[in-house]
Amino acid sequence: MEPVRLRELAGRSDRRCLNTATLGYREPVAVTAQRAAAAGFGWITPWRREIDEGRPARDAEAIRAAGLRVRSYCRTSYLAHDSEAARRQAIDDNRRALEAAAALGARELVAVVGGLADGSRDIDGSRAQILRGLEALMPAIETTGVKIALEPLHPFYAADRSLLNTIAQAQAWCETLDREGRYFGIAVDAYHVWWDPLLAPAIAGAGPRVRAFHVSDWLRHTQEPLLDRGMMGDGVVDLKRLRAMVEATGFDGPVEVEIFSRDRWWKEDPDVVLRTCRERLETVC
Amino acid sequence: MEPVRLRELAGRSDRRCLNTATLGYREPVAVTAQRAAAAGFGWITPWRREIDEGRPARDAEAIRAAGLRVRSYCRTSYLAHDSEAARRQAIDDNRRALEAAAALGARELVAVVGGLADGSRDIDGSRAQILRGLEALMPAIETTGVKIALEPLHPFYAADRSLLNTIAQAQAWCETLDREGRYFGIAVDAYHVWWDPLLAPAIAGAGPRVRAFHVSDWLRHTQEPLLDRGMMGDGVVDLKRLRAMVEATGFDGPVEVEIFSRDRWWKEDPDVVLRTCRERLETVC
Repeated sequence: MEPVRLRELAGRSDRRCLNTATLGYREPVAVTAQRAAAAGFGWITPWRREIDEGRPARDAEAIRAAGLRVRSYCRTSYLAHDSEAARRQAIDDNRRALEAAAALGARELVAVVGGLADGSRDIDGSRAQILRGLEALMPAIETTGVKIALEPLHPFYAADRSLLNTIAQAQAWCETLDREGRYFGIAVDAYHVWWDPLLAPAIAGAGPRVRAFHVSDWLRHTQEPLLDRGMMGDGVVDLKRLRAMVEATGFDGPVEVEIFSRDRWWKEDPDVVLRTCRERLETVC
Repeated sequence: MEPVRLRELAGRSDRRCLNTATLGYREPVAVTAQRAAAAGFGWITPWRREIDEGRPARDAEAIRAAGLRVRSYCRTSYLAHDSEAARRQAIDDNRRALEAAAALGARELVAVVGGLADGSRDIDGSRAQILRGLEALMPAIETTGVKIALEPLHPFYAADRSLLNTIAQAQAWCETLDREGRYFGIAVDAYHVWWDPLLAPAIAGAGPRVRAFHVSDWLRHTQEPLLDRGMMGDGVVDLKRLRAMVEATGFDGPVEVEIFSRDRWWKEDPDVVLRTCRERLETVC
């Protein structure tokens, strides 16, 4: 790959985003926002469990008061199910998520699309259900002005969380659903995609579809891939190389830290976690 | 996909192969071979730990006496390392494995190529080391007459076991190393590849390169992907669909059962395991 000049992250809170999962959802989002702002983050990506979706304006105001902007909103509910009723329910639920995202001022709703329908071995059929579910959300995307960022998840999750597992597949889905790029984009999460032998061409091919870039690290001897992510620099991912690929597409959003780490970072003092994240953003990302 | 008439497995011991990992290496290979033959398997794929490589003729004779043929031999040692000496040592070791495979009458040595070199984040560099290691084995493949079957492993193992993670990648490596198909083939293991969105075209593209087909099952809520594989039919993989893809390439070898299951099947009576495998081969594979 050609050497690429990475954007400067030091001193640029506008290029740093905290995904609240990093702190383990231990405190109200208003507190998390204050801590994030104090640690030099300019953006926040909250999770639905933290937001009172009946009155999102209050949480939006708390985040704004802390001096942060909302980047994305996490996340959709799964779209493949064993009954039409369950599929419709998921679509309705995701519509509400888009509305809440709009009220928060988020740019996009992150989509974790779901795995195989319950009890099913029909991988093509479940993928087709997911595509139909995404298509059904297009009017709500239009109304709310909030796009959906499709996030390919590591293939470890194919059965139970996501049948979308590579950037190239996400790009193909975007092209199928939305040739002009008005509705769907792609979230590139280093943890999920670092292993992909076709990563560089896939990211280049996704081009302006890339709407989010998440970092953490893959620990060499990961035992449990859901809640054992590493802090940037503690694992095997060459994050600078990955960021270079992402920035070569023209992506100019913040680098978003998202670390699920039940036994290590979720037990650490939140301010220590945030200080470490910021330092690592400036040294290894 | 077009409906494909699957080969008949019932009553065909020549189409059933036992990979000895399925029994957890609890008994000498001579005993395992007798059990496998009694359960209706015509082929066996042993592991290096079971074979006395100083005098493989004795194990070969025991397997033959049980009425079995050796299909493949498991497996190579890893090829990416942090020193030239360690890389050379791995190549020497794999050369010995090819010689033992030949003495056993195996058709191919299965390659698990290794992950990132120790302490490295250089994924391209480690892949290049692996390719050079495979290339260095070509004279020994020529001499022994035993091919190497490259086995893509699930991306979960990319860091520490294998930077070869998809069928398409294996096919690309084969084309790079060996355009005429004299040295390298591909082992398709359902557990490792079932999730791949490009699986059907990749297997079709691999065509006559496919030299082995391994089955087990992916349990829906897998917690630990090394030793928690499911018995065929207990998980989410549509094994008939996968076998149809493999057989459409012209593959006419046996279906090989390989189940790593520390807490379930390795604790079960070996004859019960084998009976269950055979029954599932005839019903769900």
